[in-house]
Amino acid sequence: MTLANKRVAVLSPVAWRTPPRQYGAWETVAGNIAEGLVSRGWDVTLFATGDSVTRAQLHSVVDRGYEEDRAIDPKVAEYLHISEVFEHAAEFDLIHSHYDFMALSYTRLVKTPVLTTIHGFSSPAIMPVYQKYRDGYFVSISNADRAPGLNYLATVYNGIDLSLYPLRAQSQERGQERGQERGGDRLIFLGRIHPDKGVHLAIEVARLSGLPLDIAGIIQDKAYFREQVEPHLDRNIRYIGPVDVPGKNQLFEGARALLHLNTIPERFGLVLAEANAAGVPVVAMDLGSCREVIEDGETGFLVNNVPEAVGALERVGEIDSNACRRRVQACFSIETMVEAYERVYRMIFEQEAF
Amino acid sequence: MTLANKRVAVLSPVAWRTPPRQYGAWETVAGNIAEGLVSRGWDVTLFATGDSVTRAQLHSVVDRGYEEDRAIDPKVAEYLHISEVFEHAAEFDLIHSHYDFMALSYTRLVKTPVLTTIHGFSSPAIMPVYQKYRDGYFVSISNADRAPGLNYLATVYNGIDLSLYPLRAQSQERGQERGQERGGDRLIFLGRIHPDKGVHLAIEVARLSGLPLDIAGIIQDKAYFREQVEPHLDRNIRYIGPVDVPGKNQLFEGARALLHLNTIPERFGLVLAEANAAGVPVVAMDLGSCREVIEDGETGFLVNNVPEAVGALERVGEIDSNACRRRVQACFSIETMVEAYERVYRMIFEQEAF
Repeated sequence: MTLANKRVAVLSPVAWRTPPRQYGAWETVAGNIAEGLVSRGWDVTLFATGDSVTRAQLHSVVDRGYEEDRAIDPKVAEYLHISEVFEHAAEFDLIHSHYDFMALSYTRLVKTPVLTTIHGFSSPAIMPVYQKYRDGYFVSISNADRAPGLNYLATVYNGIDLSLYPLRAQSQERGQERGQERGGDRLIFLGRIHPDKGVHLAIEVARLSGLPLDIAGIIQDKAYFREQVEPHLDRNIRYIGPVDVPGKNQLFEGARALLHLNTIPERFGLVLAEANAAGVPVVAMDLGSCREVIEDGETGFLVNNVPEAVGALERVGEIDSNACRRRVQACFSIETMVEAYERVYRMIFEQEAF
Repeated sequence: MTLANKRVAVLSPVAWRTPPRQYGAWETVAGNIAEGLVSRGWDVTLFATGDSVTRAQLHSVVDRGYEEDRAIDPKVAEYLHISEVFEHAAEFDLIHSHYDFMALSYTRLVKTPVLTTIHGFSSPAIMPVYQKYRDGYFVSISNADRAPGLNYLATVYNGIDLSLYPLRAQSQERGQERGQERGGDRLIFLGRIHPDKGVHLAIEVARLSGLPLDIAGIIQDKAYFREQVEPHLDRNIRYIGPVDVPGKNQLFEGARALLHLNTIPERFGLVLAEANAAGVPVVAMDLGSCREVIEDGETGFLVNNVPEAVGALERVGEIDSNACRRRVQACFSIETMVEAYERVYRMIFEQEAF
């Protein structure tokens, strides 16, 4: 079966631009899939905000992300945007949805098959929708993040654009005694400021280890920031707001390790792959997908609590930056991801042919 | 054309049960339409919460109203409920939607014609959806509540079940000097506690006229209640919470007038018809649909400000309770409403036949 003559619609969320300027994991992955498919000769239409940047054909009815323009009503934007792709369903051989349970509710009204990449289950309240449409086509982004009973065709790990995250330079002040060849002494936290992401645990680790910590990300839980982050900010522990790609690379440059001490099972953890791509070791809580993304002792360390994280920091010098990047190239690149999705698309086209 | 063999789906909201126990104008009207159609021999399926009460066939995927059961996620309930009727579209000759802009986003995915009764434009933000689907079939609930450019087939006034609101008894203490034959001396406010509904103006009128005021309804704007209602509550001005039908009739019994001093254009004002049905005169702000529902000097008075409202209260004795009820019977009964909708349905079936 030739695939390249198939027309694919990629439905990205409209919370942020695709790709997002700063935060926005779902839009990042949807955008990477569209780019990767274009590179491999597919006829791709990206349904995303009007200010999105893509080599695919862009189809948009919502000008800007509703998180970036408060004049836009999220509910209105979602109904207009999602229904738009389904109204054009006949123009496509496949709709690849990244729009959660809402898009599922339109799938039985069109003949075009719909593949849904589930980027996470935001709440138990949404499960009845997945259960109703469980016979659809689903992809999980890690083996850990699966719900029972859904028709999963595969796990496809998220892929990042490695050109955006080059291996960081050799350190000027080579830390011989630590055996570190790149990076500096700073710890970094990258992610939403939310209890799920364990910012408070990263702060605890920084204090116990005596290393400085840079905290970057959007403040999603204001009370949590006010009560459990802000009081600890000082010369050593800094909050620097959300960062874009250059900002991330700057952090990676001086980092000893990325701390990712999530308190609930991680679904994938895009930032783990980004840090590894730059050669930064990751100290991650062994919850959810982290052990699928990080190879313990090779690209970072999996820990179960704060003392273990402090201990792991003593050993991050053992991690080879080149090994970190090689693993991302092999497992979490756009090319790897898109090849995996091509296999999934092929499965769908074969099933639909009956 | 015979109509009675046509199958109609009535899509009610799922914020509340249909009919609602207390507050819930949209569910009230959707329920009344379903009942009225059944009475006239139609094959009707009501899509509503599972605990709804109807003589139509009930189809439900959401057990209870999301406003009545906080365990239900409103967004999940809406997507599941609305998509359900469209997934069953082929079983119906017409879908009559009372579900605002959200249901419009499914209409182009089915062949069954969809009539939308617009119960109100909640925000300018939703207008892009109506503009996109402006060539659909629309009914306005008053001439005042129309948006430009939409394909309106008619204005159909809301109809109430007159058997629920009997003409109140003759007053024991007949107020000869005021010429009043029924009711008492109390003023009543019935509606959402929200600045749009002008509860603060009703309070001002009560104070200036020296008459007691009973305020009934759900508190939709808590800050407004706390700041502009609660401080004025005393022996004369009471807040009694939301009321059901018997509760309303009890209020009507002792009422001199219903005060409806809305601060934005009223869309219809179901409670005006309910009060009039019971024989209670209405003093209403001359904004939006009020002059379509209230006949000035016959079933109440239209006013432009608080002093005019106080003045109108001196004249409510001139209003004949029987005239109030007769007008509701003629213009705002279920039968009148359903006959009007039958004419609209006929227009749609004729247009679709081409």
